[in-house]
Amino acid sequence: MTARSGRHFLQIPGPTNVPDRILRALAQPTIDHRGPDFAELAMDVLRRIKPVFGTTGPVVIYPSSGTGAWEAALVNTLSPGDRVLAFETGHFATLWRDMAEGLGLVVDFVPGDWRHGVDPAVVAEHLAADQQHSIAAVMVVHNETSTGVTSRVPEIRSAIDEAGHPALLLVDTISSLGSIDYRHDEWGVDVAVGCSQKGLMLPPGLGFNAISRKALAAAEKARLPKSYWNWTPVLDANERGSFPYTPPTNLLYGLREALSLLESEGLPEVFARHDRHAAATRAAVRGWGLEVLCADEREHSSSLTAVLLAEEHDANKVRQIILDRFDMSLGAGLGKLNGRVFRIGHLGDFNDLALAGTLSGVHMGLQLAGVPIDPAGIQTALEALRA
Amino acid sequence: MTARSGRHFLQIPGPTNVPDRILRALAQPTIDHRGPDFAELAMDVLRRIKPVFGTTGPVVIYPSSGTGAWEAALVNTLSPGDRVLAFETGHFATLWRDMAEGLGLVVDFVPGDWRHGVDPAVVAEHLAADQQHSIAAVMVVHNETSTGVTSRVPEIRSAIDEAGHPALLLVDTISSLGSIDYRHDEWGVDVAVGCSQKGLMLPPGLGFNAISRKALAAAEKARLPKSYWNWTPVLDANERGSFPYTPPTNLLYGLREALSLLESEGLPEVFARHDRHAAATRAAVRGWGLEVLCADEREHSSSLTAVLLAEEHDANKVRQIILDRFDMSLGAGLGKLNGRVFRIGHLGDFNDLALAGTLSGVHMGLQLAGVPIDPAGIQTALEALRA
Amino acid sequence: MTARSGRHFLQIPGPTNVPDRILRALAQPTIDHRGPDFAELAMDVLRRIKPVFGTTGPVVIYPSSGTGAWEAALVNTLSPGDRVLAFETGHFATLWRDMAEGLGLVVDFVPGDWRHGVDPAVVAEHLAADQQHSIAAVMVVHNETSTGVTSRVPEIRSAIDEAGHPALLLVDTISSLGSIDYRHDEWGVDVAVGCSQKGLMLPPGLGFNAISRKALAAAEKARLPKSYWNWTPVLDANERGSFPYTPPTNLLYGLREALSLLESEGLPEVFARHDRHAAATRAAVRGWGLEVLCADEREHSSSLTAVLLAEEHDANKVRQIILDRFDMSLGAGLGKLNGRVFRIGHLGDFNDLALAGTLSGVHMGLQLAGVPIDPAGIQTALEALRA
Amino acid sequence: MTARSGRHFLQIPGPTNVPDRILRALAQPTIDHRGPDFAELAMDVLRRIKPVFGTTGPVVIYPSSGTGAWEAALVNTLSPGDRVLAFETGHFATLWRDMAEGLGLVVDFVPGDWRHGVDPAVVAEHLAADQQHSIAAVMVVHNETSTGVTSRVPEIRSAIDEAGHPALLLVDTISSLGSIDYRHDEWGVDVAVGCSQKGLMLPPGLGFNAISRKALAAAEKARLPKSYWNWTPVLDANERGSFPYTPPTNLLYGLREALSLLESEGLPEVFARHDRHAAATRAAVRGWGLEVLCADEREHSSSLTAVLLAEEHDANKVRQIILDRFDMSLGAGLGKLNGRVFRIGHLGDFNDLALAGTLSGVHMGLQLAGVPIDPAGIQTALEALRA
Repeated sequence: MTARSGRHFLQIPGPTNVPDRILRALAQPTIDHRGPDFAELAMDVLRRIKPVFGTTGPVVIYPSSGTGAWEAALVNTLSPGDRVLAFETGHFATLWRDMAEGLGLVVDFVPGDWRHGVDPAVVAEHLAADQQHSIAAVMVVHNETSTGVTSRVPEIRSAIDEAGHPALLLVDTISSLGSIDYRHDEWGVDVAVGCSQKGLMLPPGLGFNAISRKALAAAEKARLPKSYWNWTPVLDANERGSFPYTPPTNLLYGLREALSLLESEGLPEVFARHDRHAAATRAAVRGWGLEVLCADEREHSSSLTAVLLAEEHDANKVRQIILDRFDMSLGAGLGKLNGRVFRIGHLGDFNDLALAGTLSGVHMGLQLAGVPIDPAGIQTALEALRA
Repeated sequence: MTARSGRHFLQIPGPTNVPDRILRALAQPTIDHRGPDFAELAMDVLRRIKPVFGTTGPVVIYPSSGTGAWEAALVNTLSPGDRVLAFETGHFATLWRDMAEGLGLVVDFVPGDWRHGVDPAVVAEHLAADQQHSIAAVMVVHNETSTGVTSRVPEIRSAIDEAGHPALLLVDTISSLGSIDYRHDEWGVDVAVGCSQKGLMLPPGLGFNAISRKALAAAEKARLPKSYWNWTPVLDANERGSFPYTPPTNLLYGLREALSLLESEGLPEVFARHDRHAAATRAAVRGWGLEVLCADEREHSSSLTAVLLAEEHDANKVRQIILDRFDMSLGAGLGKLNGRVFRIGHLGDFNDLALAGTLSGVHMGLQLAGVPIDPAGIQTALEALRA
Repeated sequence: MTARSGRHFLQIPGPTNVPDRILRALAQPTIDHRGPDFAELAMDVLRRIKPVFGTTGPVVIYPSSGTGAWEAALVNTLSPGDRVLAFETGHFATLWRDMAEGLGLVVDFVPGDWRHGVDPAVVAEHLAADQQHSIAAVMVVHNETSTGVTSRVPEIRSAIDEAGHPALLLVDTISSLGSIDYRHDEWGVDVAVGCSQKGLMLPPGLGFNAISRKALAAAEKARLPKSYWNWTPVLDANERGSFPYTPPTNLLYGLREALSLLESEGLPEVFARHDRHAAATRAAVRGWGLEVLCADEREHSSSLTAVLLAEEHDANKVRQIILDRFDMSLGAGLGKLNGRVFRIGHLGDFNDLALAGTLSGVHMGLQLAGVPIDPAGIQTALEALRA
Repeated sequence: MTARSGRHFLQIPGPTNVPDRILRALAQPTIDHRGPDFAELAMDVLRRIKPVFGTTGPVVIYPSSGTGAWEAALVNTLSPGDRVLAFETGHFATLWRDMAEGLGLVVDFVPGDWRHGVDPAVVAEHLAADQQHSIAAVMVVHNETSTGVTSRVPEIRSAIDEAGHPALLLVDTISSLGSIDYRHDEWGVDVAVGCSQKGLMLPPGLGFNAISRKALAAAEKARLPKSYWNWTPVLDANERGSFPYTPPTNLLYGLREALSLLESEGLPEVFARHDRHAAATRAAVRGWGLEVLCADEREHSSSLTAVLLAEEHDANKVRQIILDRFDMSLGAGLGKLNGRVFRIGHLGDFNDLALAGTLSGVHMGLQLAGVPIDPAGIQTALEALRA
């Protein structure tokens, strides 16, 4: 890495900009994972992570990426050949589907246009049709990191309830946790999947499962093979502030600091800030005369915004120019959106002026790439921010 | 954690004392895992980790604990119902056996007394008896972290070769890697299992598999279910300096620094230092009139020493006094050795005076716990160190 | 300090935003200041600081603020009752005058309007009038931190030369060093005064004197009392990589890193970047319909811009709103400019998007404070940055 | 600096080993020294430093070395030609005398053998003889860093009081502050001189003056020229949590953390710890059959121990061997003690095992250098530590 003046703008939708307080927390000396100081740390983070998920139930923390937590959600609750209902809301929903199939599950995959979230009516329809209750679980991505589209989890919950269907509800909160209101218990989610490098403002390396009682009961019968991801020994050890393997102590230091930051600002304030930044970003995009990928006003993501370019423009070229000229990383279009969209992350440790800098970089980058924009777009964004 | 004056002595056999250079490296800002700076980092550590394993083949890095890397070694090379040969050399060998069984493998588990390594003659015997070549793999723990006893891998290799047996050789190098001479290619090991928090001087959070060609070939036929641990997508992505999931960037920063430290000192010098410190530790133990757990002079560990107390003394009480009075963590006796032994870690970022401080703490702690010792033991250790 | 989301924008004209690489460098363990590693560090920074001043002569480093380096420049070269020529270019020039008088010097203080630099013609005039050569030194502030106005040092040098006057030329480079082109040797400056917390991107705590041969000769006769500031023992000790007192080791670690950053970017590129950011800032100010304090196009500072408000607006109120709402610190008007101007620092570790964020914050803050602006000002700035 | 395994043992009598908590505190981003967060920091450290000096009066903090604080003590209280009484207790007392003379004071310098502290009877004698009260101040070094000998300040105070003499009492607490009991108010000291890199466990870069009312009154009449060191503007600004120059923010972050550490352990416990470590060190020295430089049992330093070698041995050779072989820095003999003594620092952030490591290094180093010692010395030290 060559030195560049000033800070890099890491405006991908995760990993996010890690606050310097968390970076310093990571640099604390590693301690004995079987000693009293570690037990205190573990008990502390295991307790304080719960409100972030909106749960009073257990949250399992893995040394893993988010994909590990995806796998854990499946292998702890399901058995080979189980049928699950999933939705093509974007790239990550598709990857989770692939994983489920690879693990030996049978996936009913509802196609989608990558511009809408899960349609609760379609959930209702599928469950109503499943008279034998052969569908063991419904898999939903709360906030599609590839599209900037959210799914309305409470409405999905209602659809399941109205169908009187016993399926588990598994929700990926990877890019919503700590950024967009999520309520595990209130919404009746059974397993929530999270990770460290998004709204939690940590480096990658931690995966999370928040687990309902119903999911714990399901786990007793689930027969997919598992060792590392097995909740049982983790939950047992966690009772004593320990882990069944050597835990990732330094990332847990970071987590403790992250929880302090979230508590200090207040979760409702954190969510409101993300909403405000997302609204200002959409104001800029529309002010420039461009299109936001998300097609439903009820489903805009507050953690990222995907911008759809006209066919004649290459979104990757825009991103490359912005990286080279302005030292800002933006998210690429993934899968079938490659080259068609770029994604602006506005989640995690962020503030108004960093967003203004970010939007200014997009503004100039679009111009340099020859994408025609209305230059007053930036003013519109500042007006939204100022309000 | 309350403040105590001076540095904690973290003399468990891992996690080890993390050098401040590595701690600072961990605190570098997280970057885009799909950008050019990350690719440079990834290519760099993937290349430079190889000599630490003594291999020119691929090394897979997981965001995981060492147990994850154990699992990866099994699920990538074996199929349900496969027979494997394992040895009861201590607590961790037993746990690895348990994992193998849990994953659906059939384990021939050779009993042991936890004071000796794997006997190459017994390996020879078992393989010779297996005329049908039904044994798919031999599982060996190079350095038993619970006992301070090593197994002679080259002799085990010879035993396999002499039996003309095609079994894979899977070796746990968790507490030997970067501390005790290990030569993946030269010794014909098929999968080596490692982790970050021992000789690599990093916090916990990274698991490793070094993989032979034979293991890669076996992987093509292995049918244990796998997703996260699957080598194939990792190896494919690593070709381009990327990962099939969000990689643990900050731990990789630490790994890069750790590799620089090992390269700067030189691996042979690192191993010689560990040998010297282990010899001085044994000199102290014997000078005090106590017994080293390891019963074979050829098998002493250079990364830790387990001290066996007479029945009437409680090793945990000794450890507790040392922790309370001298702010030093020692390893407990695990499994059936609980209360009978304590373990002194002398691996990783360490030097003569830190060892002298460590042994002084053990010396005083034994006295305070009422374990009779010859006080000249410490002099014997200093003589060994000075030589 | 309460936690706020995102990074503070420290846009005062120093201390500047310290790069995280330098912050980590500061956190290296302190070493023996009489050992070989320290000598290597000292020799290294003492050598590499020279090009930053544009000198091949000695640079003295003090553990002090910049005011300490002001005092050092005077007490090492002058004697009680000596006459010096100084110029009221702003607040800091006035404070330096006050210090000179307090130390027993007689100051000819040429009045100024705080909107212009030193007029070389006035220098010429004063020196021509001083037939007895009773003026021992000319004191010039290269870049007035209180006004954003530079003085044209090479023209001042010419004026002195043309007058054939032997006076020493003492130049305060506090907020120009490492940001604005400064050439100690080429411009014939005798003592340059610098500090750590501006263009060098370090925390406060180091003061500098770059010293010409003529100044060294003057030092032999200078009779102002001095102990701590005395160049002689420092220069003697520096020959051996040591200091006559315990040196500020950790700030020197930071300095070494800062020098690497400047060398990596290249000094000409560093200066060009500052010029570009200053031009974009002026474009914004003028685009908003506001006035830049600096009244001479040849004298605009590239490290900060002072914005003059109409009488009916309170610049401090603007600053307070910007601090409260946008977490950005701007410089206050100092001395007689209090409440009339605010100062935007755009020096040190900085880039285009951070400037865009900064100007966006000023834009919104002015609007919130009721200062009428043309909102297209921000577009003008982005056009300048993009160019 | 080349990498060496393990931590350097920095056992010079300052700079001391900086705790990693303080190192991380230093790495916090620099903030606006005129903003509210800084004022809070400044008020906090200015208040909490007072108990460390045992005073309720003001403490001035300079960005400087300890020598700067020496100068400040003199120039704020004295006038050209003033007579002061000083004592040759060692190298630093001699340097402070030199400084006083260089600043134009007349020093009555009582000769000493560098093995004893100031004799209170001699103080009494000199003051009794000074009927005209021409002695303006008595200068005492509380703990001579060059010899490991303390002076009994309360007895000196009594001697002054009994003589009914109005002289100020100026005390250098550089290597006693935060390590050895010091009571500014109770002992009636007028100016105490301190610095950051000893018992305060910080890097070098801060100088301190604790000031009595009598000293403040004296300052009003003192005519030695001063600008940087002038207490008045500092005390004025400190009232508002500010400084008359840009303060060394990051070192103040470190100071805040250091104060928390001292408060957490408790000052009496800190002093007791230093006493205990000094006693164990003397036990080792005498156990080896060597001589402690300090010749009076009442005057042993608790922050360092100087070891006197027989003429035929070169203390510098011992130090060099210990540095090369064991990566430990010890203090050299200074001035006339060069080559005759080495100094073991046992102050600051330290604990029993670090001391045991330190003494082990000295033990082995003496043997390697051919200095005959009784090897049971180390046992004696461990017995003292264990007690």
